[in-house]
Amino acid sequence: MTEILKGKPVADAIKADIVERVNKLKDREVNPKLCVVRLGANPNDISYEKGILKNADKLGILTEVIEMEESSTTEDLLDLFDKLNANKEISGILLFRPLPRHIDENLIRNKIDPSKDVDCMNPYNLAKVFEGDFSSMVPATPMAAMKMLEHYGVELEGKNVLVINRSLVFGKPIAMMLLRKKCNSDYCSL
Amino acid sequence: MTEILKGKPVADAIKADIVERVNKLKDREVNPKLCVVRLGANPNDISYEKGILKNADKLGILTEVIEMEESSTTEDLLDLFDKLNANKEISGILLFRPLPRHIDENLIRNKIDPSKDVDCMNPYNLAKVFEGDFSSMVPATPMAAMKMLEHYGVELEGKNVLVINRSLVFGKPIAMMLLRKKCNSDYCSL
Repeated sequence: MTEILKGKPVADAIKADIVERVNKLKDREVNPKLCVVRLGANPNDISYEKGILKNADKLGILTEVIEMEESSTTEDLLDLFDKLNANKEISGILLFRPLPRHIDENLIRNKIDPSKDVDCMNPYNLAKVFEGDFSSMVPATPMAAMKMLEHYGVELEGKNVLVINRSLVFGKPIAMMLLRKKCNSDYCSL
Repeated sequence: MTEILKGKPVADAIKADIVERVNKLKDREVNPKLCVVRLGANPNDISYEKGILKNADKLGILTEVIEMEESSTTEDLLDLFDKLNANKEISGILLFRPLPRHIDENLIRNKIDPSKDVDCMNPYNLAKVFEGDFSSMVPATPMAAMKMLEHYGVELEGKNVLVINRSLVFGKPIAMMLLRKKCNSDYCSL
């Protein structure tokens, strides 16, 4: 029996929940703010960014875009992250990747404050996902898939699930999430 | 077709390799040394420790045991780890777990120098395993199983493998190792 799970009703429910939570924060005079960091002006990045800014605006989340020269150095980025980590007005940081090759991504992702790491790039947050702790920052796409299953009341315990992906941004984290739900998660190594 | 893979020949081969590598280090006047840290004197710990010390001795690896009071505080352990991290004569640190409940294990495992973390407890090393980078510290048991398969020339690419475990010390890391070998790794959530 095939059932197609539609995303829009789930997204609408999640957005309504976010608006409510943002409003509660604002009652306490906390204004959540996302800082997008972009190197250069790749058209794909710009287009993705537009979607993010539009969504954030609808949800009442403040945004700030920092565009750096594509020729910026690792040191420049580390300095910027020091400032963003320390800036109490910024609650989340999203760095667009892939980064130019001359940037040492490993230094950058270890630098970002784990509590502001909305893209789950810091190894500290990745390790939590591996451990089955999804209480802080988690990769967005697998969590979206889990929210879909939850929204439609799909029972997971004891089920056999096939994950056709093995990336760090989708296949591996969703396998950890499914395991936590006591699924038998069959990994297909595409 | 069932084939039983025996461990002893593999262990013997690994030990011979270690002896050779330790001797090469000694030629360069580097003396590898393992420091075992134990809280209290649990008989199981003592027995495990005896095995470790005996094996290390046979392989030419120096050892040191630090026994602390079971009532030691998290702060005591953090101070000790600061000293062990800074001590250039110590190449590896093994902290016996489980720790007494009053110890904040999360602080301790974040404190250990990732390059001395032989038990792969630091989230930095765990994240590497999750990413599929097994070049530094990895959990010992799953790596031992992989070494068995390698020793007996078991081809892994494209194979379906069933992992009957989902712990952080075995099931999850070995699934990462098998994925890296392009297996379809079927997790059974026991």
